[in-house]
Amino acid sequence: MISGTAPVSLAALQVGIQTRLEGVRGEIRRLIEADFPLIALVNSHLTRMQGKMFRPTLLLLAEAATSPPEPRAVSLAAVVELIHLATLVHDDSVDHSVLRRGMPTINAVFSHQVAVIMGDYLYSRAVIELVRLADLAPLRVLSRVTNEMTVGEMRQLLAHDPLAFSEADYDLLIRAKTASLISGACEVGALRGTVTERDGMRRFGECLGMAFQIVDDVLDFTGAEADTGKPAGLDLREHKVTLPLIHALPRMTPAQRAGVGALMANPEPDEAEIGRVVAAVTECGGLEYAQERAQSLCARAEEALEVLPATPARETLRASLLYVLERRS
Amino acid sequence: MISGTAPVSLAALQVGIQTRLEGVRGEIRRLIEADFPLIALVNSHLTRMQGKMFRPTLLLLAEAATSPPEPRAVSLAAVVELIHLATLVHDDSVDHSVLRRGMPTINAVFSHQVAVIMGDYLYSRAVIELVRLADLAPLRVLSRVTNEMTVGEMRQLLAHDPLAFSEADYDLLIRAKTASLISGACEVGALRGTVTERDGMRRFGECLGMAFQIVDDVLDFTGAEADTGKPAGLDLREHKVTLPLIHALPRMTPAQRAGVGALMANPEPDEAEIGRVVAAVTECGGLEYAQERAQSLCARAEEALEVLPATPARETLRASLLYVLERRS
Repeated sequence: MISGTAPVSLAALQVGIQTRLEGVRGEIRRLIEADFPLIALVNSHLTRMQGKMFRPTLLLLAEAATSPPEPRAVSLAAVVELIHLATLVHDDSVDHSVLRRGMPTINAVFSHQVAVIMGDYLYSRAVIELVRLADLAPLRVLSRVTNEMTVGEMRQLLAHDPLAFSEADYDLLIRAKTASLISGACEVGALRGTVTERDGMRRFGECLGMAFQIVDDVLDFTGAEADTGKPAGLDLREHKVTLPLIHALPRMTPAQRAGVGALMANPEPDEAEIGRVVAAVTECGGLEYAQERAQSLCARAEEALEVLPATPARETLRASLLYVLERRS
Repeated sequence: MISGTAPVSLAALQVGIQTRLEGVRGEIRRLIEADFPLIALVNSHLTRMQGKMFRPTLLLLAEAATSPPEPRAVSLAAVVELIHLATLVHDDSVDHSVLRRGMPTINAVFSHQVAVIMGDYLYSRAVIELVRLADLAPLRVLSRVTNEMTVGEMRQLLAHDPLAFSEADYDLLIRAKTASLISGACEVGALRGTVTERDGMRRFGECLGMAFQIVDDVLDFTGAEADTGKPAGLDLREHKVTLPLIHALPRMTPAQRAGVGALMANPEPDEAEIGRVVAAVTECGGLEYAQERAQSLCARAEEALEVLPATPARETLRASLLYVLERRS
């Protein structure tokens, strides 16, 4: 099974596709290019902020696992990363976040206005590139996914009342907000495979994506800012209800529960208050439960891989589950 | 020539296409439909806020002037209005506007967050519909246009210094911000015409769209809130530099020019201060000049119509120039 083995780094997953990922980075630079100075300035900031390329990695692995490589996959991987970037820029603006991957956000460096417009700019560039590739299939997947992500963002706005927000609500939220694009990346990579392989990759991505978000939410409780690039306890500070809290709340003592209520009612909770809620969530098994759910989602993702032929790429996809479960950032 | 004739109402332009515009309204409702309650709530607000359907009108007239009618044009017209709606929602959020067409904006009724997400929701729904229609040609036009509009919005952010913002900058701004989508609507309507007709409609839309924005900017100086649905002098209050001011500024007395500088430096200019700048702009011929430019753009738009066959739809497109020049709201 998935747990208990040695940690897997993202770099290890990317060993066989380094050249193609370099190509993806080049494609992204080409796609966002602008001759308008303010946009060029924001672009150079975005390029420095560049992420871990997890979604492009999955797309390229999904392609390798289902069909002979085509140069188009590099462009499609760039489009997926661009859509991801566009949603990050808007999310940071919606959340008034000031840090992302340890760097100041677009809304913090420039302004909220620039962030809204820039997200639109990046997303419309992604659509232009998909149209240039002249294939409706990836457009169909990625336009659906982009819409799902906006519904996820709306769900997020309502995820602030721990008494009203259930585990089922949380599942709907993370499926729409995070799993949809990860699943879309896997599906787009497998578009030239059989229908069974394509469906398998979509399911793989959905389970993996949900696990990815759950681990993210656990790291918000346990992670060090030096690793994650954002302050610990940020979700609680922003009154975002995530799985560890949802699970722990009914298991808390009345005093612990009152502490959660007080934090949620306090517009500016301090470190001590957050620390007490983190301790209560941990004590009541919220983190353990969330980790178990992430593991069982990864087990389902692993099952979905069984429809694929036995290839090195399939084994790397399997290893990506370990990366997701054990990552520290 | 175009000026001097009787005013034309938008309703008069829409006489022959009322049933199809009803269809467009129905399509918009179908496209934005959501089972998530918060989105459904925002949708019902947007539906009540519904605009004058100028862009769908142009698209349907362009179709009628260049090819036999197809039901698809109704869906395309709905998509164009949806893109327009998405940009309005984001613009209002970027500008912190509280009123649009006399009704409170999404950011005012709900929140800034809801407005950002909702704009993304509407735009991604538009792309999904374009993909469903399975035709890359309108997607190509409308994704390009959407990207141009974001560049226009960025230009708008920098249009706050009357000494640095030239008439050439203004032209680039209004072409990207407003004329691009109006031109796109005309071009998409003419996609089944000849290449010459399609190019003609694109140019028609571009000139008409620029004139439309210039008239809008003049109405901001002269219009009554009861007609326009927003307070007069709003652009000046928000320190937005538009054509009347650009033209008038070098013609002002030193005292008048100092008044402009003071207004631009004042974060909350009062009615009297705005009134004095309006008077100076008027006295120095800013409004007259802007109106002349709108007229000459409409004359160029009229020339572009000459490539079309003589049909009633072409005459209605010609009449739309009068509507644009003489509208009060």
